[in-house]
Amino acid sequence: MSQQELFIATQGRGAVDITNQVNKCLANSKAQLCHVFVAHTSASLMITGNEDADLLLDIEDYFQNQVADADPSYRHCGEGDFDMSGHIRSILTGESKTIPMTNGALALGKFQSLYLYEHRAVDNTRKLIITEL
Amino acid sequence: MSQQELFIATQGRGAVDITNQVNKCLANSKAQLCHVFVAHTSASLMITGNEDADLLLDIEDYFQNQVADADPSYRHCGEGDFDMSGHIRSILTGESKTIPMTNGALALGKFQSLYLYEHRAVDNTRKLIITEL
Amino acid sequence: MSQQELFIATQGRGAVDITNQVNKCLANSKAQLCHVFVAHTSASLMITGNEDADLLLDIEDYFQNQVADADPSYRHCGEGDFDMSGHIRSILTGESKTIPMTNGALALGKFQSLYLYEHRAVDNTRKLIITEL
Repeated sequence: MSQQELFIATQGRGAVDITNQVNKCLANSKAQLCHVFVAHTSASLMITGNEDADLLLDIEDYFQNQVADADPSYRHCGEGDFDMSGHIRSILTGESKTIPMTNGALALGKFQSLYLYEHRAVDNTRKLIITEL
Repeated sequence: MSQQELFIATQGRGAVDITNQVNKCLANSKAQLCHVFVAHTSASLMITGNEDADLLLDIEDYFQNQVADADPSYRHCGEGDFDMSGHIRSILTGESKTIPMTNGALALGKFQSLYLYEHRAVDNTRKLIITEL
Repeated sequence: MSQQELFIATQGRGAVDITNQVNKCLANSKAQLCHVFVAHTSASLMITGNEDADLLLDIEDYFQNQVADADPSYRHCGEGDFDMSGHIRSILTGESKTIPMTNGALALGKFQSLYLYEHRAVDNTRKLIITEL
């Protein structure tokens, strides 16, 4: 078992495919599982389809409709319109993923990719902790 | 640690209790954790109650109300009315579960079962990857 | 790898920070990952921010708005107004978390805590299974 950190730069709200970056961390590994953890509460991880960029747009629309930005009823709003909505979106999608590995790479399905989902409107550097086992 | 594939036939949209099928894969194992992963983006895993079949009907109603099928605003709809809603439902429920094991079986709570949730209206064969550790 | 049970008393609906109680179970451990599992279908686990108590109030409001209590369309309602909504809230947040460890403690981000989210209105004792690996 081994553990490493991976830092990902995000450029505003949206999902970024990090499959290749995670696979680079796993090269030559003989592990069978990879655990990826985001050490933040307004960014999350998501596995979904990678064949059509429209899919990510529809997902973003879904969350915008279901989790209001700048809801006047929010008490926690010190960091702006995307503050509380970012936390809720992170809870719904989740801060970690565990993924099977084969031959030193994520054994994702043919159409699956791993995405880091940035929920804030600002640029960030997000810290991920990657554990192979 | 060992890894195997399990293929589950689904018959249209709905949740299928796969606890027994997963336990068969784990027989005689001395592992303490089982990781189950669905290698698809329109089927997911869910742990919920197994005492009352109505519970699954209410869950299905919930997702139908919260995640519109055939929403005219969806861009990604090439595979039909359940295309985009299937992806969103998969994201909300999640493609993997990690479950404690005791004596070669899932150590679920008394009322918990593990379900494969098929979100498409067609029959499918879904590939799961089961890792014991 | 080792496994232990942790029992948490809950006092009605709401999220309880259990980070310290889980860390006590992990003291002196050299493990790199901790898996926490709730053996129930109406309580769940959540990782979110710990700096502002308002955040938990806004999360609770969100789930009350999105997952109706006592919806007359629910078939499964034998245990009262919070019966079916508790199951759905548990599905959306999830019954387990896997978290990196460093030096015998959860390696959560600076603002992250681990919460047990009780979805029922009554007092309960909830059984958690903690596996270090």
